[in-house]
Parts: sequence; C-alpha cells; structure tokens
Amino acid sequence: MKDLKKYFPFYDKQSNLIYFDSSATSLKIKKVIDAEMQFLTENGTNPHAVDYKKGYQALELIEQARQLTKEFINAKKPEEIIFTSGTTHSINLLANGLKKLIKKGDEIIVTELEHSANLLPWIVLAKSNGAKVKKVELNDDFTIDIDSFKAILSSKTKIVSFASISNTIGAKNDIKLITKVIKDFNKDIIVHVDAAQSIGHIRTDVTDLNIDFMSWSAHKMYGPFGLGCLYGKYDLLNQLEPLFYGGGMSLKIESDLINYSLATLPEKLEGGTPNISAIVGFIESIKFVNLIGLENIEKYELELKKYFVDKVKENNLEKHIIFYNLDIKTPIILFNVKGVNPQDITNFLDDKYNILVRGGANCARRIEGVINTKIAIRASFGINNNKAEIDKFIEALKNTNSFLDVLF
Amino acid sequence: MKDLKKYFPFYDKQSNLIYFDSSATSLKIKKVIDAEMQFLTENGTNPHAVDYKKGYQALELIEQARQLTKEFINAKKPEEIIFTSGTTHSINLLANGLKKLIKKGDEIIVTELEHSANLLPWIVLAKSNGAKVKKVELNDDFTIDIDSFKAILSSKTKIVSFASISNTIGAKNDIKLITKVIKDFNKDIIVHVDAAQSIGHIRTDVTDLNIDFMSWSAHKMYGPFGLGCLYGKYDLLNQLEPLFYGGGMSLKIESDLINYSLATLPEKLEGGTPNISAIVGFIESIKFVNLIGLENIEKYELELKKYFVDKVKENNLEKHIIFYNLDIKTPIILFNVKGVNPQDITNFLDDKYNILVRGGANCARRIEGVINTKIAIRASFGINNNKAEIDKFIEALKNTNSFLDVLF
Repeated sequence: MKDLKKYFPFYDKQSNLIYFDSSATSLKIKKVIDAEMQFLTENGTNPHAVDYKKGYQALELIEQARQLTKEFINAKKPEEIIFTSGTTHSINLLANGLKKLIKKGDEIIVTELEHSANLLPWIVLAKSNGAKVKKVELNDDFTIDIDSFKAILSSKTKIVSFASISNTIGAKNDIKLITKVIKDFNKDIIVHVDAAQSIGHIRTDVTDLNIDFMSWSAHKMYGPFGLGCLYGKYDLLNQLEPLFYGGGMSLKIESDLINYSLATLPEKLEGGTPNISAIVGFIESIKFVNLIGLENIEKYELELKKYFVDKVKENNLEKHIIFYNLDIKTPIILFNVKGVNPQDITNFLDDKYNILVRGGANCARRIEGVINTKIAIRASFGINNNKAEIDKFIEALKNTNSFLDVLF
Repeated sequence: MKDLKKYFPFYDKQSNLIYFDSSATSLKIKKVIDAEMQFLTENGTNPHAVDYKKGYQALELIEQARQLTKEFINAKKPEEIIFTSGTTHSINLLANGLKKLIKKGDEIIVTELEHSANLLPWIVLAKSNGAKVKKVELNDDFTIDIDSFKAILSSKTKIVSFASISNTIGAKNDIKLITKVIKDFNKDIIVHVDAAQSIGHIRTDVTDLNIDFMSWSAHKMYGPFGLGCLYGKYDLLNQLEPLFYGGGMSLKIESDLINYSLATLPEKLEGGTPNISAIVGFIESIKFVNLIGLENIEKYELELKKYFVDKVKENNLEKHIIFYNLDIKTPIILFNVKGVNPQDITNFLDDKYNILVRGGANCARRIEGVINTKIAIRASFGINNNKAEIDKFIEALKNTNSFLDVLF
C-alpha cells in the first residue's frame, strides 16, 4: 500500500510527529475536514428546516449518510442506523432503552476487558432492575472462551455485550462464532458489539454476523468528533425507549400533558438538532474507507504489527519490557517498562522522540482482572503510520533500558 | 451597528439569500469554522489523551471553553458548566438525572409554549415516577402569568421549567421575577430555564437570575452543531444521575461488576470522548458575542423587529395576514396568510424571493393550546440581517395577498 500520510493534514506542518494513538481517535482526513467546513460555510442550516431548499439539502445529506452507513455495515434498512454523539451515547441509548425488557434475576454477560462505556451502562441497568452483570472467562489470547461462554449462558441470560476488538489489549473476538453459540442457545438473547476499535480497521457485516446491535464512533474511522452510530435490527431497535426526547422525534403531545406520540425509526431515537456538519464529514470518512478498502487497511496494519514484533525480538526488548499482546493480530501494543511508571515512559516518548502513545487504564477499568496490572502503555498503529516510524519507536524503546540515565 | 454580514461566510457566494431562521440555527461565523478546521488539521487528538502534549492541549481547550462559558453566564464555578451535544441532551440529562428526587404526586410546572425538548422529558419523568406535569396560564403577551403562577405553586411543586424566549411566538419571560416568586414560595423548587432562544441574543446572568439550571445549544449562538451546555448550581448539579456512563467519568469498577466510583463534576456528567472540535469552535462563538456585545445584539434585533412592524402597519398587511406576535419585543415573527397553507407560503418565499423561513409547528407541539392553530410561519431575525432584507420580505408578503394568482 502506498504511503497514506498525504491524506492526513496533521502531518503538513509537523511531519516529525509519530502518532501511535489511533485507538483513542484516528487522525482526520482532509476530505472530512473540508466537507464539514464547506457545509458550515455554504449551508449551515438546520436539517429540520425542510421548508426551504437549504434545509432540505441538509436533510438529504443525513439520508445519504444513513444509506452509506447501511451499505458500509450491510444492514438491511437505512432506518436501522441511528446517529448518536458517539459510542458512549450509543451504548447508553441501548442499555437505557432496554430497561423495560430486563427483569429481576436476569443476566447480562460482558468481559472484563470492556471499555467503561461497555461496562457501566450495563451495571447501571442491572442495578436499577435487580439484574446481574456476569463476566465470561477469556482464553490465553484474551478472546472470549467459547466453552466457558457456553457454560455461563442460561435461561436468565438476556444480553451479551462485548467488544469486537478490546481497546487495550487488542483481543479480537470471533463475533460470528460467539453470536452463533448465543443464538443456538436462545435466539432471543440480545447480542451487542462495541465496534469502536474495529469499525475503521476490519470489515463488519452485521447481517453475516447476525448481531442485534452495534455501536461505534465516527472519530475512530478518520472522521469527525461528536458523531456515532447505533445499529440495530429493525424490530429490536423499534422496541428501545428513546434516551433523548425532543424535536424531530415528537409528533403530537396531548393537552393532558400525559399522552404523546412519537415518530417512527430512525427519527424516534434521534431527538434534537442532528450534528449535521459531523454527519457531512462522516460521509467522506465512509467514502475514504471504501476507497482504501478495509481488507487493505487490515492487511497493512497487521504488517506494521508484525514488523514491530520482529524488531522487538531482534532487539531483545523483552528483557526490560513486558509486552502483553505481541501475539495478537491487531495493531495495538500494550506494554510496560519494568520498574518504571507508564506515565514517565509516555512523557519520555513524547518529549524526546515525538512519539504519541497512551498510558494508564485506557478507560478499561477491569483490565487489572485480566493482565495483573491496572496501568500500561498503549501504542496503536493506523494506516497513517509506516515502518520508518516503527524503527524510531524501537530505538526509543531500546533507550528505556537505562531509563533513569537517559532521562536525567 | 455596522453591517455584520462580513462575519458570516454563508453570504460569500450567495448574497441574494435572505436567512430569517436564526431561531432554528444561527448562521456560523468564519472564526468558528476556522477554529474547528484548524484544530482538526493541526491537532485532532483525543482530549482524554493527556499523556502527550497534543492531547493535553486539547484538554486545555476544553477547560478554556468552560471558563469562558462560566464567565459568559456569570456562573460561580467552571465545574457548573457541563458540555452536552445540545439543548435536547441537556434537558434530558437534567430530567433523567432528577429521577430519584421526583416522587409520586409531585408536580412539574411548564408552559404550553415549550419546545418538545422542554416538554417531553418532563412528561416522561412524570409518567415514570407517578408525578404530574401542569401548565401555567399565560398573559395576553404569552408570558407566564404571575398571579396564575402563584396559584399553581404548591407543596407538590418540585420543578418549574420554562423557556426564556419561546421558540415560536417569541414570548420573553421575566426570569428573575418568576424565579423570585418560586423561591419565595419554596426555595427548594428547582428552576430550569430553556435558554436556546435567548443565549445568543440577550444577557443571561444565572447568578443574578438565581436559577438552578439552564440549557442551550452552541449552534444557536453562531457556533458549531453538536454541542450544548447544561448549567447547574454546583450542589444541585452534583445530585444528578449521569445520562452517559462511559470513559472519562468512571474512576473505578469493582470486580463484582456492581460497585463503581465516578469522577467529580464536571467529568461525572460528561461520559465519552468530548466533541472537542465543536468546543474549540464554541470558544470563538463566545468571543464573538462578547465582541459585538449582547446589549448591542438585543438592541439591533429589536430595531429590525420594530422596522418590520412599522412596515406591516404602513402596508396594511394585517388585512390578509394574521400576525400573532407583533407586539412582542423579540425578533421573531409568527404569522399565517389567511386561507393559505403555511407550507405553500414558505415554498413561495423560498422559490420566488430567496427568503428562508419556517412553517409548521416548529417543534412546539402544544402551540395550538395557545394561538388556536397548530401551524404557522416563523421568521426570525438575527444580527446577520438588515433592513433592506426586511423591505424585500414586506414586498413578498404584500404579494401573498393574491397568492394563487401570483403562484400560477
């Protein structure tokens, strides 16, 4: 694959920066930024204002984005795509929206690797309804253990929610197999996939996978902030209670101030003025991913990972660095330098090498239940990266060997 | 005041368009668009990624926006400002967040003029908790009638929620007086103001007004889409249950998957990746409003309204047009052409005169309880408008006299 840096204006004035934090947010491509700017400059009207052409054009852009999104994940209908403000909004809409379906004693299954956004909403739902959140055991590669999973499924199981790719350790679950196991056991168990880490990296065909719901953010697929999606199978999606009641989703409110009627999907779950400029940007991010091709993206990013792993071995870095996930086939590296606080390492990499990586719990608050440490350093590669940057990273990591000497 | 059109790039390529829909969304100023674009181009990182300078700079921009917002509305602490995705999000966060405080038999007071976003969340809350939403009577100028208001307050009253300026008829409530009446009756009654229609037009000093909560959207103050605020007095705000559980607001999740601890305000109520590019744009919209001066904005917009009203009288337009709010001192005009469907008029104005106005219920679903029609046409003036545009509007309205002749 050709160097894709030219798509990312981030590097225009600072080609020395090495951005290894695509898991937190991917860098934005120029077409996304330009499309947002052009919309705000030349239109900027409210898409609910369909009484004039400008407003109607804004509405049409939303429907274009919805159609593209539907095709992108191979949903059955555009109405199955709900625009939200991000993954967190999507999952909270889902968990809150299922409130009436969850009874005392019901069980919701998650993994301990989940991001807070895919743990807390379920814990809150469970607590409010007298249900219970249970965790499934993981394999050595941190994916869901199918046997343990089969053992945990019961007549109490109502929801299973897990990440396609975990945001810390990068474990990549076999969504299709897991969903088949669940649906074979009881087709009414709701399967939700947190696709924040996979949406811009691997193909996700919701029809082929047979999942019921999926959540993700646009800003993790080279797109705008402030926008996400909730996909849901139509009939299930239609059962959700809205999280936002407001304009665009209310049809009528009776004078008793008790009874009201709501719009149909998708508007029903999209109360309020849509983030239209972000939606316009998102159109370009889908087009970009389609242009490059998800298969090419996945292949390229795995090449980077393999290149990194080879260099780690070559340079014997495991002597002073604990790597938690070298064997995992996703472009995320989780590590700690023995005896050194992660934050000192992230600052060191930033200050001395212009390498931008994360340290801490990375919002996966139960990670300690899995890798025996609360905090670690995460480097995540994307299509904006190349092997030369990984060489520099390896050099920097070599120098963490005598960390205190280097720093002072 | 000088012509402010130069601030709005909307007119650069289409100076013929007459935008009279500031109530739906104000046009965006160039500095807002440029700031968003610059951030996305040169930074674009996640503000939660404070392990490197770029991410830390993003976080600092949020705190700068929070401080500016605090000063803009004269709140006591920056932590009293919660960034949301818009007014609808803010009010739903508030209504849902107060769930534990509302008991069976409690009452929530609103007006029938409220936007759906300030009606439905309260109806949903009331229904879920066995409480009741009651409406207060209005004066002839559609403001809250203080005597009727005093009569409706009781020991059951827990919340009063009303718009500073209604989004259809433009009625401007005396927030300070209403709040004093409420607080004199019982200081524990929660007062919420939907400031969507006033935030970019008149000064709102939350400390002087003594209100407890206030909601608004950035896109109605010349700023970005996808961003809003909830202001709340610290102790009350701190009692709200979050609406979004996710990253940035969770501190710890115990291995029992039951217990967890949350961050303090403001993060506690801001789960998920912030809409950082919009927040960066919002900084510029506050600076712009401060530069022009809210007093100047209010004065200028009222001049436009007065000019319009004078022309209506001069041209005897009331003969064939019903105007609902000529006497109201806000820059919103609500009207119907006798015997003609509003949508025919809005299309006519758009097609023949390039005048962009709204028709329909404008999301105020109980408007029929107030002005005896479900649908009307709304024209709303802003600082992007001038008297020459109003002259053209008057010409167009004159031609609605013989509407069918003109159209065909």
